Amino acid sequence: MLLVNIGQLVTLRGSSIGPRRGSSLSELGIIANAAILCLGGMIVSVGRTKDALRDPWLKKNRKRVTEIDCRGHVVLPGFVDSHTHPVFTHPRLLDFEKRIAGANYEEIAEAGGGIRSSIEGVRKASKAALTEMVAAALQDMARHGTTTVEAKSGYGLNLESELKALAVIRAAARRWPGTVVPTFLGAHVVPPEYRERSQEYVKLVCEEMIPAVARGNLARFVDVFCDRGAFSGEETAKIFQAAEEHGLAVRAHMGQLTETRLQPFLRFNPASLDHMDHVHDADLPLLAASGTVATFVPGANYFLGLNRYPEARRFIESGAAVALATDYNPGSSPTLSMPMAMSLACTHMKMTPAEAITAATINGAWALRLADRKGSVEPGKDADLAVFDAEDYREIPYWFGVNRCELTVMNGMPAES
Amino acid sequence: MLLVNIGQLVTLRGSSIGPRRGSSLSELGIIANAAILCLGGMIVSVGRTKDALRDPWLKKNRKRVTEIDCRGHVVLPGFVDSHTHPVFTHPRLLDFEKRIAGANYEEIAEAGGGIRSSIEGVRKASKAALTEMVAAALQDMARHGTTTVEAKSGYGLNLESELKALAVIRAAARRWPGTVVPTFLGAHVVPPEYRERSQEYVKLVCEEMIPAVARGNLARFVDVFCDRGAFSGEETAKIFQAAEEHGLAVRAHMGQLTETRLQPFLRFNPASLDHMDHVHDADLPLLAASGTVATFVPGANYFLGLNRYPEARRFIESGAAVALATDYNPGSSPTLSMPMAMSLACTHMKMTPAEAITAATINGAWALRLADRKGSVEPGKDADLAVFDAEDYREIPYWFGVNRCELTVMNGMPAES
Repeated sequence: MLLVNIGQLVTLRGSSIGPRRGSSLSELGIIANAAILCLGGMIVSVGRTKDALRDPWLKKNRKRVTEIDCRGHVVLPGFVDSHTHPVFTHPRLLDFEKRIAGANYEEIAEAGGGIRSSIEGVRKASKAALTEMVAAALQDMARHGTTTVEAKSGYGLNLESELKALAVIRAAARRWPGTVVPTFLGAHVVPPEYRERSQEYVKLVCEEMIPAVARGNLARFVDVFCDRGAFSGEETAKIFQAAEEHGLAVRAHMGQLTETRLQPFLRFNPASLDHMDHVHDADLPLLAASGTVATFVPGANYFLGLNRYPEARRFIESGAAVALATDYNPGSSPTLSMPMAMSLACTHMKMTPAEAITAATINGAWALRLADRKGSVEPGKDADLAVFDAEDYREIPYWFGVNRCELTVMNGMPAES
Repeated sequence: MLLVNIGQLVTLRGSSIGPRRGSSLSELGIIANAAILCLGGMIVSVGRTKDALRDPWLKKNRKRVTEIDCRGHVVLPGFVDSHTHPVFTHPRLLDFEKRIAGANYEEIAEAGGGIRSSIEGVRKASKAALTEMVAAALQDMARHGTTTVEAKSGYGLNLESELKALAVIRAAARRWPGTVVPTFLGAHVVPPEYRERSQEYVKLVCEEMIPAVARGNLARFVDVFCDRGAFSGEETAKIFQAAEEHGLAVRAHMGQLTETRLQPFLRFNPASLDHMDHVHDADLPLLAASGTVATFVPGANYFLGLNRYPEARRFIESGAAVALATDYNPGSSPTLSMPMAMSLACTHMKMTPAEAITAATINGAWALRLADRKGSVEPGKDADLAVFDAEDYREIPYWFGVNRCELTVMNGMPAES
């Protein structure tokens, strides 16, 4: 496939060393009037259109190559959405309406809403029905420019239902040309039947679930929701330890509601710590010196009607690597649009459009340990691209609430929006 | 045209008396398993599918009628976007980026941004080029469920360019099957060449522009931006007076930046007062007793990164009629999505989904004095409908940043999203 006459190509090239930090977060490697040649699902050359058309191989083989004219369009690496919870059965409309009326978490739970309703839904649902829903969500994500998605379990919360959720993610991924990274989030909350017995549930996660997930090769990561009302720092470390013993990499939800000091977790080398609304100043240099990405999910702040967002500038100025993700889930962030997450980052977290693009592509790829294959437009990387109806990349977060993605290419396969 | 098997039809019937106020803002008139018959661009019957199919006329003529199966979909009156500024030439990306970097209004203007850049753009642009852009915006609006749009001039700010902008609105409206209501906003700001001479500019608006607009029948409304940095209350009253003398109805931008008391304006019976971020408690009963709608445009609050939104609950509880609009414009609200405006109203202004739907349909129609034809699904009204991929109307503001509108019907003509 040959994309030619690209008005503005955002390459993000030069990303092999490590995630973008500090001022390099805004180095987009833009080429005007660009072309990209993809063969066998891989990017083989990137440059100016006129140079590409002079290439001897292409001159000989041009007729055999599908050509897409991208005049007046922006092309960038497909978004990497590194934090989603897509395995659920129904929108939580009751929570939505109750929250508007001023109800708190407990009142919503008492009315039959909250995470418990998602857990009941997933436990009861068939694998086939769940697979349909996840597959539909993946397609919708691609329509908004996303070509790589991290997908968590976490509404099953018993061995059988967690394995079912991961099997659903695998089945849906097989039907989608993009790339799905499965994450085991058995430690999402303590399920109702283990109320007041969280130690026992953590034991179950560590001694039964993680070994089963590892045996079945069902997940790349183990995730823990470490916060008030979920799992303590000590419990998180135990679960990380079990993951490590079973050869699984780790990541965590951290600092959404309360500040947790990061040092005890960094020794497990988590790929990413997500949310990060509350973080201690002294932890920022530790994060900056680590291989861990801080992933912001401002969709949750927006949807919960908070006026507070993660303080991205503190992170960026300290040299921490930052990524952006949707947190797609039915309770706190029912959006699967990466442009929406980027709009929130620009308008409410004072990230520049260039920083938002970087956080949504190459740094998302680092947050999934996939930067060798994803997140930039460079020869040798997977042919994952997003084509936007725009003349300037800044328009992507600017025209908010509206999807201007016209086409995505996933592993070399084009899909119209 | 016959829409059948509609999962959930939101009719908003019973809207002939006046705009919805207080508790009636949440009376949606929902019919499950519904059908709508439209003939000659008009709605002729509304009811349950099984009753519709028993109708003798339909039995005889069913083959001649286009049928659309709306199983698993929500159908509602097409949105009425009662406040937009679509006649502009370019996105204001400089403002966007400068604002993120912390620049204020003056610094953005000095860097060549701000409203001045839109004015220069519109003054230089050809009528044909502007018409293309407005027509494209109208099409995009329809894709998001909007079937009636108010469109303002206001980036011309001299006689020639304001008339050009209104001619552009008329030309674009002719190419669109929906309904466009043109508004003359010569009093948007004092243009640069009248700096420090606002009295002279107001004279020009009243004595040359308004008469020319009225003569050409180019607008239904005269609008004024009454606020700090724009026009004073006294100047607004003068312009309203001139509009009245020329038989044009009025509306105003009011209370966006500063509180202005409303009494002096209500005697002109404005169709709507818009923004309303700042309003005096004592004015709410006056508004409630008037025929004037308060129109909120939360997209501007969002895009400007404000943490403050209009206090919708104060208005609703006082009995004022409230509408929602996008404020589509390149400086402060580059969104044309009514579902986005509704999401903001629910998450940040604590309007219920039912109140947001009402504000975006029938009360928008009242804000344009079109409620006899628009804003509800009732026999005799124009066939303006929006079909959403959803089982419940609350999903429309819930799935934020994503467009789930699949089809709109405008004056009886279907258009896919």
